[in-house]
Amino acid sequence: MKTTSAPAAAAPPKNEIQLIPLLITVVFGLAIWFIPAPEGVKPEAWHLLAIFLATIIGIILKAASMGTLCMMAIALVAMTGVLAPGNPGKSITLALRSFGDKVIWLIGISFFIARGFIKTGLGSRIAYIFIKLFGKSSLGLAYSLGAADLMLAPAIPSNTARGGGIIYPIMKSMAMSLGSMPDKPETHRKVGAYLTLNSYYMNLIASAIFLTGTASNPMCQKFAADMGIHISWMSWFWAAIVPGMASVIIIPYLLYKIFPPELKKTTEAPAMAVAKLKEMGKITKNEWLMLLAFVILLVLWVTGDLFKIDATTTAFIGLSILLLTQVLTWEDVKAEKGAWDTIVWFATLVMMAGSLNELGFIPWFGHLIQGILLGMSWTLAFPIIIVVYFLSHYLFASATAHVAAMYAALLAVGIAMGVPPLLLALMLGFTGSLFGTITHYAHGPAPVYFGSGYVDVKQWWIMGLIIGVVLLAIWMGLGGLWWKITGVY
Amino acid sequence: MKTTSAPAAAAPPKNEIQLIPLLITVVFGLAIWFIPAPEGVKPEAWHLLAIFLATIIGIILKAASMGTLCMMAIALVAMTGVLAPGNPGKSITLALRSFGDKVIWLIGISFFIARGFIKTGLGSRIAYIFIKLFGKSSLGLAYSLGAADLMLAPAIPSNTARGGGIIYPIMKSMAMSLGSMPDKPETHRKVGAYLTLNSYYMNLIASAIFLTGTASNPMCQKFAADMGIHISWMSWFWAAIVPGMASVIIIPYLLYKIFPPELKKTTEAPAMAVAKLKEMGKITKNEWLMLLAFVILLVLWVTGDLFKIDATTTAFIGLSILLLTQVLTWEDVKAEKGAWDTIVWFATLVMMAGSLNELGFIPWFGHLIQGILLGMSWTLAFPIIIVVYFLSHYLFASATAHVAAMYAALLAVGIAMGVPPLLLALMLGFTGSLFGTITHYAHGPAPVYFGSGYVDVKQWWIMGLIIGVVLLAIWMGLGGLWWKITGVY
Repeated sequence: MKTTSAPAAAAPPKNEIQLIPLLITVVFGLAIWFIPAPEGVKPEAWHLLAIFLATIIGIILKAASMGTLCMMAIALVAMTGVLAPGNPGKSITLALRSFGDKVIWLIGISFFIARGFIKTGLGSRIAYIFIKLFGKSSLGLAYSLGAADLMLAPAIPSNTARGGGIIYPIMKSMAMSLGSMPDKPETHRKVGAYLTLNSYYMNLIASAIFLTGTASNPMCQKFAADMGIHISWMSWFWAAIVPGMASVIIIPYLLYKIFPPELKKTTEAPAMAVAKLKEMGKITKNEWLMLLAFVILLVLWVTGDLFKIDATTTAFIGLSILLLTQVLTWEDVKAEKGAWDTIVWFATLVMMAGSLNELGFIPWFGHLIQGILLGMSWTLAFPIIIVVYFLSHYLFASATAHVAAMYAALLAVGIAMGVPPLLLALMLGFTGSLFGTITHYAHGPAPVYFGSGYVDVKQWWIMGLIIGVVLLAIWMGLGGLWWKITGVY
Repeated sequence: MKTTSAPAAAAPPKNEIQLIPLLITVVFGLAIWFIPAPEGVKPEAWHLLAIFLATIIGIILKAASMGTLCMMAIALVAMTGVLAPGNPGKSITLALRSFGDKVIWLIGISFFIARGFIKTGLGSRIAYIFIKLFGKSSLGLAYSLGAADLMLAPAIPSNTARGGGIIYPIMKSMAMSLGSMPDKPETHRKVGAYLTLNSYYMNLIASAIFLTGTASNPMCQKFAADMGIHISWMSWFWAAIVPGMASVIIIPYLLYKIFPPELKKTTEAPAMAVAKLKEMGKITKNEWLMLLAFVILLVLWVTGDLFKIDATTTAFIGLSILLLTQVLTWEDVKAEKGAWDTIVWFATLVMMAGSLNELGFIPWFGHLIQGILLGMSWTLAFPIIIVVYFLSHYLFASATAHVAAMYAALLAVGIAMGVPPLLLALMLGFTGSLFGTITHYAHGPAPVYFGSGYVDVKQWWIMGLIIGVVLLAIWMGLGGLWWKITGVY
């Protein structure tokens, strides 16, 4: 088990090529490439699988930064012609097609919009207002920070930016002001450790609730659509709202009981928030404009089906408003490196995973597993699939890589075994955020929160497993009931 | 005529929204929108034309930065459903499809590769080597700087980066060392003015010679392909080589005669270059790697049809090599704002112009003009079309906007009038670089060179027109002969 500051998709990328991991990646890819394709699998599909799995292994081993691996993957897919044998022009066209995918731009454009929350200071102001209102106790403080994260989540799909960029700095300064010092271990449990874990869990729950809550959700939406399962922004939200709100209410209280902060009353916190708000002054014109754009975004996302405006179009409208009102400049957009990075790896992984489906590999795999588990009822298969997906996340330092590698395959397996498609598509989608609890490198903001130093690895893993199991129980139990009522299955 | 420092696509974008120009843009767009579509034009096509022309007008008037205008254009195209009436999901999908276009990524990835020339210093070293060899006279210096630009052009499709980022700083420091000072007008004609204009013209000629010489060339390739005219990297180069090399040889000498530098001998220049080269030290490992990647790129681009590797795939291979050898890091790629900017406006303009063609507007327009000019022979129509295209560039502060606005339409007109399609497609393509001579805001690097202060507006415009006419004569005369021999028409 690692004890040092951990790697993660969101940490500033190491640009160095890691020779040994790269070698392993290449050997691994070549090995699969040269194994003859099993019966029923086209050779192209098998070769694409080799490139795809090598890319995933490269990401997991951090052989190079994700972007570099994706550039190589595109070059290889196009060169080898696996998508269009013998047609070089079509090969590269198909290798690049996901860059034109609306799902990718929903995330990309939302990243730009999110910059507005940080640039205008509106994100911080919202957090301070919650603290001012409900921050009198450490439990209230936990709910306040969680509520702020939740409120920002629909328009900030980089949960790393939301957690690490907005909530974390406020949480840490609050904890330190309350006497919990990262460099004094005896003070960690005063309030810092509790707030750290709680803020992280709240971030993951908020990520699960909104289609635009974290970058990998729309990837799930896309993979599901490839199998004919339609999920809109609103239908995702509607399915998530009941188990999501239950989690938001239960988790801070549960953690308060099993991992209690020594400090219960935090009467200074609201005063500090008031001071910070005073320092910020009146709400600026740009904050109002940001709020307006945010409200328009939410309204259009929620009512999108009604007004016949696609979620991605809505994002473009929101960004146009911010640019026209000069809340954001085009310079801000160009400099938003995280967005360009995300667009590149997102498009590359979606292209490969989607093509594996189109070339028949994913359905073939689904039927293969179904054949092995012959006769198992779907009510048994469903929880097994979810738990396998959840626990396998111990092996992944990136939610994205995990979703790209396993979501479509597990969905195909479940559908082949009779699990109601929409139910499985949604629950796998939610799990893609919830499994972030388990390790200190499991999801984008994990290394940021872990880096606070308040929580050691052992505590992180034990609490992570407990909370993870509780979350699964809430979402599959209460969620299952809710989805039955609302006709998801 | 403007006398202050001029606007251009390449200048650091002003991010402020310009209210009056924006108002004009909006009114202009609305006016077209509400004019009933002429007979034979679908209403969707007409409405798309309104959005497209408003975007172009906005770019010309600098109502906002190009990126902002493009975001708005995408939002409008998707919202109004002009590409897929009544289908919001398909509308945004079609509005984004050009982001998956291989032509756009050929340019985008080449921008990243070009960063390697600047980062490693190889670009500057090449220029100094030419000066060391041939820089003993001001004429030799002019040829040296031109040769360096020409050599870098195939892999640096941002002619602004090539001219402004590599050649210009060297040219200016040479001119100053030779006693031509921007702030002393009496010294301008010593050598600075001559080198400024000549370097700029060489940049444009190099841009015309290679498909990857400037960003708008592949846009021409794309529009031509939409009309069934196939142009590869090699066929573009092959058509351009004879008039291109003639221009490279003739122009510096001609300018030397009609706009002579007072200083003829520049014996200090080679010595300065030697000193600079000494300062740079031995060729570094990264420079060798850059050179290797460059050679691989060139070989694959030239022989692409033979090895069945697409030009865009080649660019991805080149970038992968630079990333794997750590000449470039992924951080460099993400931070290459110019590339992301170009990808965005490029994809947006190509989407709209391409859709106007698909929706039948461009062919309709071609037939309309053909009807007006009924009976004109193609041998007359051809030069008229080229000259109209050339001279209309006085109105454009961006080559891109001009190519996007007029290339496809003029091609359609010419084809309708019987001009051999490939001949016209190529010559319009070359003209898209050559028309840059005429003003101090006509092409990406123009404001950089003009900003040196060595040449005043009057000189710039007079010399620009003369050289522009000579270039047209070379390309249409000698070029026409060459294309006859090689079977272009």
